[in-house]
Amino acid sequence: MNKDIPVISLQRLPVYLNYLKGLNDGEVYVSSGSIAAALDMGEVLVRKDLAYTSAAGRPRVGYVKSELIAALEDYLGCNGKRSAVLVGAGALGKAVLSYGGFKNYGIEIVAAFDSDPEKVGTEIAGKKVHAMGEAASKINELNAELAVICVPAQYAQEVADMLVKCGVKAILNFAPVLIKTDEKVVVRHIDVAANLAILSSMLEG
Amino acid sequence: MNKDIPVISLQRLPVYLNYLKGLNDGEVYVSSGSIAAALDMGEVLVRKDLAYTSAAGRPRVGYVKSELIAALEDYLGCNGKRSAVLVGAGALGKAVLSYGGFKNYGIEIVAAFDSDPEKVGTEIAGKKVHAMGEAASKINELNAELAVICVPAQYAQEVADMLVKCGVKAILNFAPVLIKTDEKVVVRHIDVAANLAILSSMLEG
Repeated sequence: MNKDIPVISLQRLPVYLNYLKGLNDGEVYVSSGSIAAALDMGEVLVRKDLAYTSAAGRPRVGYVKSELIAALEDYLGCNGKRSAVLVGAGALGKAVLSYGGFKNYGIEIVAAFDSDPEKVGTEIAGKKVHAMGEAASKINELNAELAVICVPAQYAQEVADMLVKCGVKAILNFAPVLIKTDEKVVVRHIDVAANLAILSSMLEG
Repeated sequence: MNKDIPVISLQRLPVYLNYLKGLNDGEVYVSSGSIAAALDMGEVLVRKDLAYTSAAGRPRVGYVKSELIAALEDYLGCNGKRSAVLVGAGALGKAVLSYGGFKNYGIEIVAAFDSDPEKVGTEIAGKKVHAMGEAASKINELNAELAVICVPAQYAQEVADMLVKCGVKAILNFAPVLIKTDEKVVVRHIDVAANLAILSSMLEG
């Protein structure tokens, strides 16, 4: 349903949402100009991005803040419910499992998988860790379309292949390696080290 | 020195680097066309991005792979050495401290800070956890220009303000909130939940 929005615009919607949620409760209206100024962006761009949602600005006053928040939440699926699984219950996997922010977006990580027999059967933040061999049946049973990969780089591709076979439609990859999938599967890559390196490159000298 | 590259191009350089490093050792040359095809990008864009580095393509054969890797590594500061500190030694902070990928980019996380007295004085992955009150002297002593924020959202802004006062020039923020700094300080935001939500929104239905 959201296919027509450019990814670059879609990426900014959570930024707007976080900004709006951080405003004082007392503020009833918010203008594209004030959003643009606060986020150091162009006003035309802000208005264009927000036009992908159902929010409608009003002449002179801008958007009703609560309506705009609701429109963004609706667009981002915050009011729905999607299940995700996580593969790789190491340090990073544990941190992601313990992270509370997903529910704001209507996402719940419902299970984890790991190849380490010592981890299988344990619970992390209330989520059970299963053996890798159970992935197919569990993903099916839990109807999980989203997956988070937190395994070392050398296992990321085979894990991704396995997840896609199990019916996963979207993958968030933390492993520092590019993974290739069927083009119907959407993949986002968070390379923590590369992000710090980009910052480092932006420094002078 | 790297100020003239657009951030959007800079962001792609680690992607090229990871791709090139993953190729077989036997491959001597690599063309912009083959990189573009492998990464599902336009060839002109690839060539434009790589032109920011010192790499020079050769007619017909393309780039010498080892030279291109060296040029990207040089541009990204992989051969230099920059020190980073981390604030917030909770689950995510621990995962980032334990993460080995930074050294590929010439970055070392040299110390952590936390407000929890039980964590202060401990070591995580060989890095000592200091009290917040020691931040100013330690950051100065260690000459750390980079910082990673892994504290809960409500503390992120004050931590950022403190870091900037201590001389930090670039911040990687994992807290799910926008932080504002002096415009000379560069900030990147990794919102894990938002990234999964973006994927979720890209699914149909």
